[in-house]
Amino acid sequence: MTDEGRFYHAGSRVVTDKVEPEIVFGSLDCFFGPAAGTFVRTVMASDRLDWFQSPAAGVDNAVLKGIGKASKHYTTNHTQAESMAEWALWAALDFLREGPLHRAQQQAAEWKRVQSREIAGSRWLIVGYGSIGEAVGKRVTALGGHVTGLRRSPGPAPGAHEILPSSVLMDELPGADVVLLSLPHTPETEGMAGTDFFSKMKPDALFMNLGRGALVNEDALIAALDEGRPAYAALDVTGVEPLPEESPLWHHPKIMLTPHDSSQTTGTILRADGTFVDNLHRYLNGEPLRNLVDRKAFED
Amino acid sequence: MTDEGRFYHAGSRVVTDKVEPEIVFGSLDCFFGPAAGTFVRTVMASDRLDWFQSPAAGVDNAVLKGIGKASKHYTTNHTQAESMAEWALWAALDFLREGPLHRAQQQAAEWKRVQSREIAGSRWLIVGYGSIGEAVGKRVTALGGHVTGLRRSPGPAPGAHEILPSSVLMDELPGADVVLLSLPHTPETEGMAGTDFFSKMKPDALFMNLGRGALVNEDALIAALDEGRPAYAALDVTGVEPLPEESPLWHHPKIMLTPHDSSQTTGTILRADGTFVDNLHRYLNGEPLRNLVDRKAFED
Repeated sequence: MTDEGRFYHAGSRVVTDKVEPEIVFGSLDCFFGPAAGTFVRTVMASDRLDWFQSPAAGVDNAVLKGIGKASKHYTTNHTQAESMAEWALWAALDFLREGPLHRAQQQAAEWKRVQSREIAGSRWLIVGYGSIGEAVGKRVTALGGHVTGLRRSPGPAPGAHEILPSSVLMDELPGADVVLLSLPHTPETEGMAGTDFFSKMKPDALFMNLGRGALVNEDALIAALDEGRPAYAALDVTGVEPLPEESPLWHHPKIMLTPHDSSQTTGTILRADGTFVDNLHRYLNGEPLRNLVDRKAFED
Repeated sequence: MTDEGRFYHAGSRVVTDKVEPEIVFGSLDCFFGPAAGTFVRTVMASDRLDWFQSPAAGVDNAVLKGIGKASKHYTTNHTQAESMAEWALWAALDFLREGPLHRAQQQAAEWKRVQSREIAGSRWLIVGYGSIGEAVGKRVTALGGHVTGLRRSPGPAPGAHEILPSSVLMDELPGADVVLLSLPHTPETEGMAGTDFFSKMKPDALFMNLGRGALVNEDALIAALDEGRPAYAALDVTGVEPLPEESPLWHHPKIMLTPHDSSQTTGTILRADGTFVDNLHRYLNGEPLRNLVDRKAFED
C-alpha cells in the first residue's frame, strides 16, 4: 500500500484503488501509516478475506475485533514482546540508576556522586506472565534479578523463579522492588491498580504499566506518588490515548511517560515480517497456521 | 572508623585516635566518607601494615600506589564491574530508546510515537576486555547483542563472540553501533579516542567511556558530535575530575554525563565486603590471598 492508500499488484508496479484481498498482512506501517483508515476499510470490505495476519498479540481493540469478524482465519503476532521487554529494562535502569537526579545535576553542572541500585539482586513482580511477562522475566533473571510471575494457570515458566496464582497479588506487592503490569484489559483487570494496590507497595519501589491504561486508576496513582509510595511510575499506556494535554500525568516529577510506543522498534518490524513469511509458507503448503485465534474471541 | 576519623577497637565500642593496623580493608565508605584523609594517612603511617584489601580494580591512582608501597600485601577488588556493566546497559538503552527525545516530548505534553532501536541485534565493540568489559559483554550477549572485544592477549573470553587484538581497532570501529572504552590510563591509551577514532564511527553510533577521562580528547569528541559522527556520547569519567563548571561537556545536547559514580551501588558495597571476608578467611588460615598484586606494580 502506498502512503496515499493505493495498492500495488504483487510483483508489479501497477497501482489500483480497489482490491479484494484474500490474504492480508497488517504490518505496523499499515496501522500507523498515513493511510491506516483506507487499509482497515479495504480489509473489512473484502468478501474474499480468508486470512489476516495481525502485527499485534492482543485482540482487545475495536479495529482488530472488526477485522477478526470479517476474516475466516486470524493469526496474532508475539514479536513485540522483545522490544517491550527492553523498554522495561530501560525504565527500570533509569529509575534504579537515579536518571532524573543525574540529569538534574548535569544541567546544574554539579559533580556529586550518587549512590544507586542494580537490577542484580532486585525483586520483580510481573503481574500477567504471558509472552511479554516472559520476555521481561528472561532478561531480568539473566541480569541477576529475582522474578515472581503471577498468572491464572500455575506451573513453571521460562524466566521466572516462581509462578504464583493471581489471587496472591496483594501478598506479593510488599516484597517487590519493581512491579510490572502486563495484562490485557478485561472486566476483572479494569482499575486493578488503585489505592489498595499502591498502599501495599514499598516506598522505594517502581511501578510500571505495559498492559493497558485502563488497568490503572490514574488519580489513585498520582495520590500514591505524592504520598511517597511507590517512589516512581513508568507508563507506556494511559486511560485515554492520545493522553489529553491537560492530564496531570504529563508533568508529574515522579512519572516517566512514553506514547504507547514500547513495541515500536526496527527489531519488531523485522520479526513481524518473519512471522508473516513463516505463516505464508504454511498457508501455501496447506499446513496449520501458527498463533491462530479461536473464532469465539470475536463473538459479541 | 567513625565519620570524625576515630577508630573502634574490634569487638568493642571503645574508640581511639591512634591505630597501627596490620590488616586494612579500604571500603568505599572509607574512601568517599568525610574522614577519607585521616583514613589514608593512618594506613600509610602504620609500621605494621601487612595486608591492604582495596575496594578498586586498578592501581593507577596516586593514593592507591602510595598505600601499595606501604603494605607488604595488596589485593584488588573486581566487584565494581557488575555495577559498571549495568551503567553501560542503562546508557545504551537510554540512547537506543531515544530517551532525550521522549523526555522532551513528555515535557511538551506531546503524544507522538517514536521509532527506536534494541540491544538485541546491536553490534558492540568493547575496547579493553578485562573484568569490566567481560561484565558488559555477558549482559549484552544475554540480551541478544553481538560483542567484539579488543585486548592485547588473543583467545576466547566469556561474553564475547570474538576477541581481537587491539591493533585492529580502527578497522572495527565502522561496524559498531556501540563503542565502549574500558581500558586503564597508560602512555599508549592516552588520547586514543581523538579525531581519527571518531571519524571511523557510524553516524548513528554511541560512544561510551567507563575507563579513564584521559583516554579521550574532549575537544575532538565535541567537534565530532557537532559534525554528527558519532550520534551521542555517554561518559562516566572526564579528563579533569571533578569536571570544572565551565567545561562544555556539561551542557552539550549529545552528551550524557555521570560523576564517576558508575560503580557506586549498594550491590558493589555488599560484594566488596564479601571479597574482604573471603580473603580474611584465607589470611587467617595461611592460604594464598585472591587478587594479590605483584609488588612491581608499585615501583616507580
